[in-house]
Amino acid sequence: MIQIAVMGHGVVGSGVTNILLNHNDEIAKKVQEEIYIKKVLDLRDFPDSPIADRFTKSFEDIINDDDIKIVVEVMGGINPAYDFVKRCLQNGKSVVTSNKELVASKGAELLKIAEDNNLNFLFEASVGGGIPIIRPLNQCLSANVIDEIDGILNGTTNFILTKMIRESMSFEDALALAQKLGYAERNPAADVEGHDACRKICILASLIFGKHVYPDAVHTEGITKITLKDVEYAQAWGGVVKLIGSVKLNKDKQEIIVAPMFIKNDCQLANVDDVFNAILVKGDATGEVVFYGKGAGKLPTASAVVADVMDCVNHIEQRRNIYWEDSDNRDVLPFEETKYAMYVLVNTENKADTLEKAEKLFGKCDVISKNDADEKELAFVTPVMKFADFDKAYKELSDGTSQTVTAIRIADI
Amino acid sequence: MIQIAVMGHGVVGSGVTNILLNHNDEIAKKVQEEIYIKKVLDLRDFPDSPIADRFTKSFEDIINDDDIKIVVEVMGGINPAYDFVKRCLQNGKSVVTSNKELVASKGAELLKIAEDNNLNFLFEASVGGGIPIIRPLNQCLSANVIDEIDGILNGTTNFILTKMIRESMSFEDALALAQKLGYAERNPAADVEGHDACRKICILASLIFGKHVYPDAVHTEGITKITLKDVEYAQAWGGVVKLIGSVKLNKDKQEIIVAPMFIKNDCQLANVDDVFNAILVKGDATGEVVFYGKGAGKLPTASAVVADVMDCVNHIEQRRNIYWEDSDNRDVLPFEETKYAMYVLVNTENKADTLEKAEKLFGKCDVISKNDADEKELAFVTPVMKFADFDKAYKELSDGTSQTVTAIRIADI
Repeated sequence: MIQIAVMGHGVVGSGVTNILLNHNDEIAKKVQEEIYIKKVLDLRDFPDSPIADRFTKSFEDIINDDDIKIVVEVMGGINPAYDFVKRCLQNGKSVVTSNKELVASKGAELLKIAEDNNLNFLFEASVGGGIPIIRPLNQCLSANVIDEIDGILNGTTNFILTKMIRESMSFEDALALAQKLGYAERNPAADVEGHDACRKICILASLIFGKHVYPDAVHTEGITKITLKDVEYAQAWGGVVKLIGSVKLNKDKQEIIVAPMFIKNDCQLANVDDVFNAILVKGDATGEVVFYGKGAGKLPTASAVVADVMDCVNHIEQRRNIYWEDSDNRDVLPFEETKYAMYVLVNTENKADTLEKAEKLFGKCDVISKNDADEKELAFVTPVMKFADFDKAYKELSDGTSQTVTAIRIADI
Repeated sequence: MIQIAVMGHGVVGSGVTNILLNHNDEIAKKVQEEIYIKKVLDLRDFPDSPIADRFTKSFEDIINDDDIKIVVEVMGGINPAYDFVKRCLQNGKSVVTSNKELVASKGAELLKIAEDNNLNFLFEASVGGGIPIIRPLNQCLSANVIDEIDGILNGTTNFILTKMIRESMSFEDALALAQKLGYAERNPAADVEGHDACRKICILASLIFGKHVYPDAVHTEGITKITLKDVEYAQAWGGVVKLIGSVKLNKDKQEIIVAPMFIKNDCQLANVDDVFNAILVKGDATGEVVFYGKGAGKLPTASAVVADVMDCVNHIEQRRNIYWEDSDNRDVLPFEETKYAMYVLVNTENKADTLEKAEKLFGKCDVISKNDADEKELAFVTPVMKFADFDKAYKELSDGTSQTVTAIRIADI
């Protein structure tokens, strides 16, 4: 029998205890050990839980219990999760977490402590919820050099964009609906501003490059400025707007960004709708491999956590080889140097003049025409160019007769 | 240092030795052991190979070498691969194979021998080429009850169907092109008759149900009878024709089939084109998860083999828990009892009469109309019904004025 503790009894945590209790026999059969939840840490009371007597409000009850070999951290946030996880690893307990914020900001340090103590620190559920991605990346693709990952990594923003694309809902209405359905938090900033997607692409980037990429080095844009007009122009261009997290190896530098992008309809990510996530991995041997599924939700995430716990039980003596080094982010290419073609929308009194000026600034542009466009609207796609150059030209485009409205990257997936 | 042997130096085998030789250092770093190819078994000579001196024509050189701990079998076919693999496992050598025919026909027996000898028998590359599927199914989804898998499992047939769908090529022309490009064998039967897809769905079914499903229990139809007309009617219906391997748990019975099917355009498998494969897995906790990528090819398959070898090295003392029992196929539902809606195409002198007759036989049918259809054609979709009932009615539909042309299942993915 392996004794474990679960820290946090929120949405994911209660899912984890449910699965472990309800599937106890099948799981024991699979790992050839019974998994026993000895303690559940939460500050709230859960008198109706079938294991109410095993709840505790004190972390000391877990850290001081030498019988507990694996600790599940599903509290979220950095404090106190970071301190608790660190102390667990320093005290001989393997840790399984779904906490992307923790892994994205403290991964290298915690992986080092785990390695030094011959313990596991596993976090499959931190990216893509129920989609297996960390383990396949680490193992199945281990004979590949992976040089690019592009993903739709946040279900909430993808739900909102899908409503805008398929039902012409405004951003505000789609956000309100997402909140009503429980897909978005009351304070939706972490999702709609791109921070959640940023944490996830940082974890994937760290894993494939073997060096930690910290979120503060990653240029991150959310979807709050996306309008129905942009969605319509994307359609006229033959694609959709999606919030993309992308990492590429560009010589010695990592190109990493989170931003809304136009993607063509025939791209494998274009049909990923609603709360679904998809992660496209490019390996030198495998070519493109895509992992697709529900990126969040109680049961998908909890099942990924339980799978990690089972893997820990299978590897209680011989740790899984998962590791990346610390870094100072100096390998990240400044986003001003990243290159994209850009969709640009301008309001102008004279389209021909403005297009002529745009082509002088950006080079040859492709105009996008859409039905019932406003007479004064001019939309076009620039050549691929460095963001710094684009930005300078973009600022020069506005003048007495024309006014830039927005600019969105064209993905080169 | 871990010493291995590679049996077979064909397309996949030479890819395996290439990766192991060219990425030797990175791989050694990842598994913390050097992997040394001590022997390569092939009846042909390869004097230009950088390891020409390690080639042998005799299996005895491998089986009698106690230093060889892992044997890669990439010969294909049952004989002599089955005998060789069995003897390796009986003699303390773990085995990695890409041989779907071997796993589909002898998996249960070989897994038992591996377990009895505390060895690994791994076969990630046998399904989906470079797509990680066996390991995620076995591990990442281990906290799920998986009750359905649907997949596009054969790249050759998917390439042919894509050419028919996108370029209105005939089956014969598309097959000839596939042969020219090296995607199809000169004798294409294993692909176009569905046998290859059948072996793969058998392996997946065995894995998720824990009991061997043998290919001869699986109703298998290929794509040789699919015409451009069917492809056009699928389009008019709002979908495409794909060769689908499907397994479902229906009460205690396994419903398992390989057949061309109509799938709706919004299904995640509809946009899987050319030689790509995709496997859709339904778990009770994760919901739908899709794995997508190149299902074949030298490097994708070889990289999956190498990843298995690395996993073997990591688990040289503690075997990976992968297993299914033998069975007598009695859990497979006879295909006559499986239920599908069916697309039916009829040539008739009198459409109204034939439709009336059809609805008496099948129940309410949905007529499919397409532009420039032949005047005598009637195409419709029946209600969901048992195949035995459908077949009886279908045979009764032909009479003096009408003649059935074809019938294709409508997928219920």
